[in-house]
Formats: sequence, C-alpha cells, structure tokens
Amino acid sequence: MNPRVLALSGGIGGAKLALGLYQTMAPNTLTVLANTGDDFDHLGLHISPDVDTLLYTLAGLADTERGWGRAGETWRFMTELRRLGAEDWFSLGDQDLALHVERTRALRTGEGLTSITTRVANRFGIHAQLLPMSDDAVRTQLSTSIGVLDFQRYFVAERTLPTVQHIEYQGAADAAANPKVLALLANEALQAVVICPSNPWLSIAPLLAIPALNSAIAACKAPVIAISPIVGGAAIKGPTAKIMTELGLPVTAAEVARFYGTLLDGYVIDHADAALANEIGIPVLTTSTVMRNDDDKQRLAREVLDFAQALR
Amino acid sequence: MNPRVLALSGGIGGAKLALGLYQTMAPNTLTVLANTGDDFDHLGLHISPDVDTLLYTLAGLADTERGWGRAGETWRFMTELRRLGAEDWFSLGDQDLALHVERTRALRTGEGLTSITTRVANRFGIHAQLLPMSDDAVRTQLSTSIGVLDFQRYFVAERTLPTVQHIEYQGAADAAANPKVLALLANEALQAVVICPSNPWLSIAPLLAIPALNSAIAACKAPVIAISPIVGGAAIKGPTAKIMTELGLPVTAAEVARFYGTLLDGYVIDHADAALANEIGIPVLTTSTVMRNDDDKQRLAREVLDFAQALR
Repeated sequence: MNPRVLALSGGIGGAKLALGLYQTMAPNTLTVLANTGDDFDHLGLHISPDVDTLLYTLAGLADTERGWGRAGETWRFMTELRRLGAEDWFSLGDQDLALHVERTRALRTGEGLTSITTRVANRFGIHAQLLPMSDDAVRTQLSTSIGVLDFQRYFVAERTLPTVQHIEYQGAADAAANPKVLALLANEALQAVVICPSNPWLSIAPLLAIPALNSAIAACKAPVIAISPIVGGAAIKGPTAKIMTELGLPVTAAEVARFYGTLLDGYVIDHADAALANEIGIPVLTTSTVMRNDDDKQRLAREVLDFAQALR
Repeated sequence: MNPRVLALSGGIGGAKLALGLYQTMAPNTLTVLANTGDDFDHLGLHISPDVDTLLYTLAGLADTERGWGRAGETWRFMTELRRLGAEDWFSLGDQDLALHVERTRALRTGEGLTSITTRVANRFGIHAQLLPMSDDAVRTQLSTSIGVLDFQRYFVAERTLPTVQHIEYQGAADAAANPKVLALLANEALQAVVICPSNPWLSIAPLLAIPALNSAIAACKAPVIAISPIVGGAAIKGPTAKIMTELGLPVTAAEVARFYGTLLDGYVIDHADAALANEIGIPVLTTSTVMRNDDDKQRLAREVLDFAQALR
C-alpha cells in the first residue's frame, strides 16, 4: 500500500464516489475509512453494514440495482428464519451471511475489525486499503418521536419514518481512532481527504465524533474536500433532507458545508446549487454530482482529485 | 402430549425407526429422546446434529437421499465461506443455517435446549415430543490413532478413518437428565422404551452415561427393547462395525445386546442373525430390520410395538 488519498465514507451514497476513486486511481493508492456507527448485533451476529457495502462495492460483488447486499443473492436462510418465528426485519442473504458468520467468529477469538476487514478485502482482491474508523464500538443512537433507536432499528425496521430529535454517537468520545488512518493523516505524501456524499449526520459525524480522528483531519496538510449529498434542496437518496428538516436546519448544500465547518478546504456542489457557491466562504467546485453510472463516478472522482491538486 | 412410547435415538439410523413409530402411532403419543453428545460449536454456532436430523426427519423436511440435512438444500453460504478462507469441513446448508443461528441466539439469551427444540418442533408441526437428553453439555470424545477428537472432527473431518481406542462422554456424569424424560420413565402409562438401531457406542452410550437417565431406564416398568444396528456381522450404515472391531469386540448382533446388558427386556434382530437368537438370553424378535422405505419403517415399528405389548 502506498496511499495518497483518504476517502471518508458511509454506505451506499459514499460508496459510489469511493468506487469512482478506486477505478480512477492507481492500485493501492486509495484508503477508504468506513463508518462503523451503524454496526450492530443481530441474531448473535456482528454486522457492519457500511464496511460490507464498501467491501462488496469495491470487489464488484454489490447488487447495484437493489442498492445493498450481494448481486445474485438468494434468501433461503430468511425463509427458514421466518418458518422458525425468528426476527426477520433485517434481511440477511445466503451469500452475505458468510461474511457475518466469519467476522463474528473472528471477533470472538479476539481479532480486531481492522484485521478482519483487511483479510476479507485481500480475499476479495481489493487493491485499496479499507479501514473501519475504529476497532472500538461506536453506536449511533437516535432520539426520535417513538423513543431512542439504534441506527438499524431506525433505518431498516422503522424505515426512517420517526421524527429525529437528536443524534448521539455512543462510545465515540472514548474510541481509539484507527491507528493506520492517523498515520496516513500525518503522512506528507497524502494528497487529499475526500468526504464522500454520505449522510453527514448519520455516516460522517460518527467518524468526526472520535476526538483523535477529528483533530488529525483538522491538522492534516492535505486539502479536505466534501461533496454535498444535497442537490437542489433534496437528498439523492436516504433520509438526509428529512433529518435536516427535523433538526431545524435549512435543507441546502450550504448548510452541509456549515456542518463540516473549518475542517473543509474545498467543497463540491451540483450545478443545481450554483447560486450558493458565493455564500459558502471556501473554494467551491460546481459540477454534476449525481452519479448514475460508473462513468459518472469516475468523472466526479477525477474532478475532485483535480480540485484537490489545485488547492494544494 | 400423552406419551406412551419413548424412543432413544441418535441421528440417521435411529431416525428411520423414530419416523416409523411416528407414522404408526397416534399423534402426541411418541417421545423421542435425542443424543446430544455430538453437539459442537462451529464458527460460533451451536450445532445439534442428532436433534436436527430428528427434527427434519419427523417434519418431512429431511433429504432422504443424501441422508442428512434438508431436502432441496442450497450451498451459497458455503461457497462464500470458502471464498473468505474460513473453515469449510462441516457443510452448512442455506436453509439449515437458520436453525443453527436461531438456536445459538436463543441459547445466548439463556433459553435451554429443551425449550428451543420444543419451540422448533411446534413450528415444524411435529406431533411428537422431541427432547434432547440433557440441557447440559455432554461431549463425546474419541481417543484415536491420531489423538483425541471431538465427535464431529472424527465423524466428518476425519471421515471415521482413525482407529478408535477409547470413547468418553465428557460431562455426562454431572449432566442433569432431561426432567421430562425422567417423568415419562416414572409414568405407569409408558408402554415401551425403544432403543433405535443407532450406533450403541456413539449415539446411545452418551444417553446411558447420564447416571439419572440410566437408572430411570433400568427402573422403569415398561419393557425396554433394542433393535440391533448390526445385521449379518455388518452395520447398515456408519462406523459401528469398524468401531466394534477396533474396540476388540466381535461384530455381532449378540455383542450389542451384551453391551446394553440388563437394561434390555427384549431384543430385535434381523433374519440374517436368526441363528444367534438362542445365545442372547432374553426374548428375541427375529424379523426384517433393514429399513429401505417408509413401509419398512412402519412395519418394523408396528412389530416392535407388538413385541413390547407381548412382553408387558
């Protein structure tokens, strides 16, 4: 590994740009740092949804139509789980299960999430460094209209319908940042930190809530660039706009930049938001940010990398 | 439940006669006590092979051609497990996995194996009482030519090839017998105890190694009848004959009766062994004991029940 670019990513939205970077850059030059605030234990299995989405996406194994899980997945296990009357609100595909079972087994023997993720990425033939943000547990908890919910309860079981009042990243204050990412952030060879267009409050905030990671990003010499997940006052996918409204925030690309604040050296918005460029207060790249196919992902990745080079 | 007959059974061989009894008797009058000496933890999952074989067999879900696991099974999970480089010597089907995951989850919450088995049997629509011999761990350990092996290591990974020197039933001396089976053995309504043609040393001995169970069988008023798994000096299936040879025992139906000793009130042998009937020393039923299809299973079951009635 000879990493030059660090991408911070949650699941599906962020993984699109992570894939664009992966396909654009030379092998072994990209590091992707994955949110693990969505991790949870289900049926005794440790599930890391964002890590898995990134593994499957970079390995070319993801179901791009459904948007999550494995391509060509089957659901025999789920059918039988239902027959047994067990909890079935979270879908586990027959192929996907292998990763959860093997990861859970390895965690029980004391192997860390970083080591397991690296092992699986190698097995999948991924030529990038994929790191969980921490080997310690950080759990995103949402205070909502129906009570405090774990992320997956909110996201999957409740389909993001409850009104969000407040979000906490339990364990983040005491979590050790992944030492490999701290080393990379301190490395002069690092050329850019890219905050992928994931949900800032659900997918990126858990990373930034880890004190050592937050200050390492703030202190790093490479330009930090975020891509807005808000385009024309709406989110491309998922509950970002809904959550912003519920938290009393204006649903604009500018508001996301305000959330990241002084961490950012550059910001990428869509043509639809061109009028906002002047109010953001840092260098802005205005381009097409909606990624419909691999060409879109690679083009946006190249533009972000060029933008970073211009900011150095 | 209004149990009248108790069958003791291991996996495949015993399950054939258990199914014959189940199909022959009135609903809710059969109790099957399953060996759990083969249970083991694999990839963090608690697996109860004999309980599962009996569940699947009685529910009509078993793969009768392959002889184990679920009919119409698929193996996507195993393919992916191999891709991850995980242990793959024990095959877990996509459907079968649901039972292991749900059982393991329930055990971790403190639910006992008896309660879980009853719940699953009800879900499967089984009109018999299927009980594990104990909720406590009993683990069959084989001292062999290549060292001490857990049962599944010996049976599956090593394909019963190592020479067996000695067999232990770890934990049996301290295990609490299933209280439901103790109550049944003390019940005057019990009409027969049937020791199915399972491997005596691997499948039935673990049950008999639990002191309270052994003495309750010895003390019960109903006739105890065993069906020989040895026919014409060979085992129908599995390593029974090989193990008898390795333990220095003659491979005969009479030797199995000697193993069960004074527990038995009657013994069932095949026509092929008719010449041995006189040397067994207890009442013997000589009939066709090889079960090739459901008709064979039901006929043998009826004959065993009639034999028990004659012995009362």
